[in-house]
Amino acid sequence: MSAYIHSRKMLYEVTQELAATAMGLQPADLIIRNGRLVNVNTARIQEGIDVVVRHGLIALVGNADHVQVAEHTQVVDAQGKFLVPGFIDSHMHVESSMVDLRSFTAGILPSGTTTICPDNHEITNVLGLRGVELFHEVAQGLPLKVLLAMPVCVPSIPGFEDAGATITAEEVAASYSQGWAQLQGEQMNFPGVIYSDPHVHAITAAGLKAGIVLTGHYASLELNKGLNAFIASGMTACHEATTAEGALRRAELGLYPQQRYGTAWLDLPNLIKAVTENPGLDTRFFSIVTDDVTPATIVEEGHLVRAVRKAISLGVSPITAIQMVTINTAQMLEKARWIGTISPGRAADILIVGDLVELTIEQVYADGVLVAENGKMALELPGYDYPEWALKSVHLDPLTKEDLRIAADKTVKVRVAQVVPGMVHTEEHILEMTPVDGELKADPQQDIAKVAIFYRHAPMDGRTGSKGMGFVKGVNLNPHSAYASTVSHDCHNLLVIGTNDEAMLLAANALIEVGGGIAIVADGELETVMPLPLAGLMSLESVEVAAEQTREVENALNKAGCPYPSFEMTLSLLGLIVLEELHFSNKGLVELKPGEMPRFVDLVVPD
Amino acid sequence: MSAYIHSRKMLYEVTQELAATAMGLQPADLIIRNGRLVNVNTARIQEGIDVVVRHGLIALVGNADHVQVAEHTQVVDAQGKFLVPGFIDSHMHVESSMVDLRSFTAGILPSGTTTICPDNHEITNVLGLRGVELFHEVAQGLPLKVLLAMPVCVPSIPGFEDAGATITAEEVAASYSQGWAQLQGEQMNFPGVIYSDPHVHAITAAGLKAGIVLTGHYASLELNKGLNAFIASGMTACHEATTAEGALRRAELGLYPQQRYGTAWLDLPNLIKAVTENPGLDTRFFSIVTDDVTPATIVEEGHLVRAVRKAISLGVSPITAIQMVTINTAQMLEKARWIGTISPGRAADILIVGDLVELTIEQVYADGVLVAENGKMALELPGYDYPEWALKSVHLDPLTKEDLRIAADKTVKVRVAQVVPGMVHTEEHILEMTPVDGELKADPQQDIAKVAIFYRHAPMDGRTGSKGMGFVKGVNLNPHSAYASTVSHDCHNLLVIGTNDEAMLLAANALIEVGGGIAIVADGELETVMPLPLAGLMSLESVEVAAEQTREVENALNKAGCPYPSFEMTLSLLGLIVLEELHFSNKGLVELKPGEMPRFVDLVVPD
Repeated sequence: MSAYIHSRKMLYEVTQELAATAMGLQPADLIIRNGRLVNVNTARIQEGIDVVVRHGLIALVGNADHVQVAEHTQVVDAQGKFLVPGFIDSHMHVESSMVDLRSFTAGILPSGTTTICPDNHEITNVLGLRGVELFHEVAQGLPLKVLLAMPVCVPSIPGFEDAGATITAEEVAASYSQGWAQLQGEQMNFPGVIYSDPHVHAITAAGLKAGIVLTGHYASLELNKGLNAFIASGMTACHEATTAEGALRRAELGLYPQQRYGTAWLDLPNLIKAVTENPGLDTRFFSIVTDDVTPATIVEEGHLVRAVRKAISLGVSPITAIQMVTINTAQMLEKARWIGTISPGRAADILIVGDLVELTIEQVYADGVLVAENGKMALELPGYDYPEWALKSVHLDPLTKEDLRIAADKTVKVRVAQVVPGMVHTEEHILEMTPVDGELKADPQQDIAKVAIFYRHAPMDGRTGSKGMGFVKGVNLNPHSAYASTVSHDCHNLLVIGTNDEAMLLAANALIEVGGGIAIVADGELETVMPLPLAGLMSLESVEVAAEQTREVENALNKAGCPYPSFEMTLSLLGLIVLEELHFSNKGLVELKPGEMPRFVDLVVPD
Repeated sequence: MSAYIHSRKMLYEVTQELAATAMGLQPADLIIRNGRLVNVNTARIQEGIDVVVRHGLIALVGNADHVQVAEHTQVVDAQGKFLVPGFIDSHMHVESSMVDLRSFTAGILPSGTTTICPDNHEITNVLGLRGVELFHEVAQGLPLKVLLAMPVCVPSIPGFEDAGATITAEEVAASYSQGWAQLQGEQMNFPGVIYSDPHVHAITAAGLKAGIVLTGHYASLELNKGLNAFIASGMTACHEATTAEGALRRAELGLYPQQRYGTAWLDLPNLIKAVTENPGLDTRFFSIVTDDVTPATIVEEGHLVRAVRKAISLGVSPITAIQMVTINTAQMLEKARWIGTISPGRAADILIVGDLVELTIEQVYADGVLVAENGKMALELPGYDYPEWALKSVHLDPLTKEDLRIAADKTVKVRVAQVVPGMVHTEEHILEMTPVDGELKADPQQDIAKVAIFYRHAPMDGRTGSKGMGFVKGVNLNPHSAYASTVSHDCHNLLVIGTNDEAMLLAANALIEVGGGIAIVADGELETVMPLPLAGLMSLESVEVAAEQTREVENALNKAGCPYPSFEMTLSLLGLIVLEELHFSNKGLVELKPGEMPRFVDLVVPD
């Protein structure tokens, strides 16, 4: 089949034709007959419902016996199967799936996600505002609704790290006026919000002034003054609740808890208890998002549907769970006149579903076009010809042993970041370390690996050559093993973790050579390299190929001693300084303790 | 007390201060302690809640023990009483209450309505787009949120009647770009919508293109093709459901049923059965509106609160009923980030309520300002100095007997409009009438009154001098009695109804002399005149004075023989040609039968 270019009509262009079709005066483009409508407006199921589509929009929901059928009209018999609105993922990062937007679209449409709100702050950290524009460009002609969330934390905490760009309030405002972005991405600098940082509030104000919905990231368990300050600053949604109480409190305060169920961060089972343990609760403020999923998860378990299935398996009624990815989310986005419900005037994003608990998605219609069937794409999407500047983003010369050296002349107390499998934060521990040959070195016997993070973006005075160094516990790497990656949230500098310097150099220099990606050295051998040429973050391969490559990375990581699944995702957060408690930036170690502002700390604790 | 000028801050101006207040780092303006929060986000009641306000916006909802109290901080002890969000009336006409916006505001704030969406199509029919601008102007400095709904049916069906202006799609677009209007008013020409009239759809498109929420008026019992066509044309809300099935079907199709409970049109008791008889229904799409209330209703029973009390008395839980005038409506308007919930970042529109079933409103805060207490305004609002062109709008010379003559030379079959107490439509009957002195005359013995409607707006060729004539049944006027009014939906031409010509002239000419209003002649005597100088529609008196004058009108109407309460409201619809079945325009008789387009009909039915 030849590549499919999607075109989309807006309602204001075609109201006359929609009315005429509903009235039976002009023919329909598509009629789906005899479905069981999962009506998310009323939380009821209606039998024997027909849906009539014209120009990709729904003209009628009800009885279509009077509707005109022309030669071009497609008539589908739903055979009493369920009609479910296409799913909306209101917080996610395409980059986490390690493929570009086009491959991603082909990867997720078969599992029923028809709208995404990508916060593309990963690519923006590398490429700046032109990364946003590029993303917007790539979204054109796709049968997926892409509501771009303008990244606002680039870098995540200014002054504490260096990304490839710094996004200003003016650039944020420009992204809205240019029509590139439709909502504001996660405001991760929540300390900056609650402590009234003027730069952070200028960005917030730019969104509010433009009438844009702002999404948050309140990664704290404090649920009174801080959470209120965060919401009062204009935040509408937050995906960082980790407890049922935190989810409930957010909803009570009018902040949509976006219950996260990604590959590695599995908050939903905790959060959903806010619903299952509070019968009668109005759940309209509850949403579900993926945030970050690997390509393997998409291929093996599907996209957002996997999270909805999980919610149902945990005791939420199917219709309530479906509301959390349809009407609730659409209302949150103030887009419920367009998406999130199978109702007249809305986009014909419709899933035909065989079983409502298993959520077996048999057909996926996007704007009235059959895009996927029985888990496979029904269309072939075109690739995108990316510019050179987006494909060559690792600006580093090969590293040497000297670059990894941590000098010391006596036994010292050292700050070590302890990773916690399945969680996004680290714990800060103070450990005693004794130098060997005048250096502090990794100690695989004690499960202590060395960490180095190198500025890798376009050359800039004061940034090029900068690095951060330290140690991590909990990765369980074997001796002579290492992990290197240019996927290193949020600045995506080159992160290297290893149990000796030779292994670290082998992994890091392999990536510098291929222009970014992930490399694993196990027992002294370069076990695998996954090239990610687009901004050092994304493959141009299909999600299936990326899934296979990711499996190779994971196998290699296991072979290198790390026993946990998908642990490359946890490791990629070691540079994410907005998380508690100890993280690595190209400018040094950053400590963030509950309820405090972030601060630089020395690797060595003074006596 | 001196007149109070209200100022209002937008969130984007003050996020830093709100955060600082929530964090306890800057003092609050207002703290309401120890309330029982009616949480409309989750449909739960929370005990022991404090609400902290700064710059009129909510900084914190929860525990305020840490919040700074300065000298200017107002601290209120709610003593465990209920905290309820201010009510939002999403469809109403200020003109129906026969006072100007300033008097209206003082009239309704004490009963807890803090936001209105006035569709000011009455004044716009008289004054055109400058009436919209004037309304916008008058709203400035008021502690009531006035979200103007741009009138789009001026006149209601072009070509079938003449108002003082004709609103075009360009003017509609201008009202949005100028910031005068925040939503689109009721699209009453529903036949034009469903039959794809290009003028009507151009107006619809102007709203959709501007991102504006459109409100509808689908006055039909047909609930499949027509209703779908109406919604598919971009309508978001409709207040014309008259049955539970009609309300449920609207909600199912994603059209907010705005359950009407005004003075004379009392649909809510029927519609609410859609909720009470369908337990478990998601009610988020259900709203409640007043549409039209007399000043007497406001004074005696309150404004929107009266409708909410009614819903509760009919078996809806208080919190569900309150959601129908708060969060549901705010979400419908896509304004839930500003109004409709007591949550951080939202306007501090808060009612302190003693009893949740009786809805005894003890205090009303608007943008954090105490505006009313125990049913009385706590502030005095300033009047507005209206321009001459708005106060002199009846352009008619005194009428003579010749103006009322309906010539006939034999017994004929005549179309008569039968009014139905409590309903907005008429029934068309064919009656035999025999001329007296070469004229068809009223026949009080048969309860047949004569109707005449005269173009009364600014002089215009082809309009000035035009009139419509006919007969009405069901008013029960005594002999020698008449009713005249310049409040005559929607064109507000001069409507005169009477049982003989002398009485009709007496009433009509009294109004021409005072510049508009309502006049009643009973048994040959001019019983009362209620002057309505503003556009011939509204008094500049207080709502209490207007209520008293309305009572005089009603008493006079009863004395003239008409036995029904508030029947002047029913009579004022005799010119509303978008309603079924027979109505009077200045261009003649207009018939509208279910499912058909409107058409002119002759008074006399051909043999």
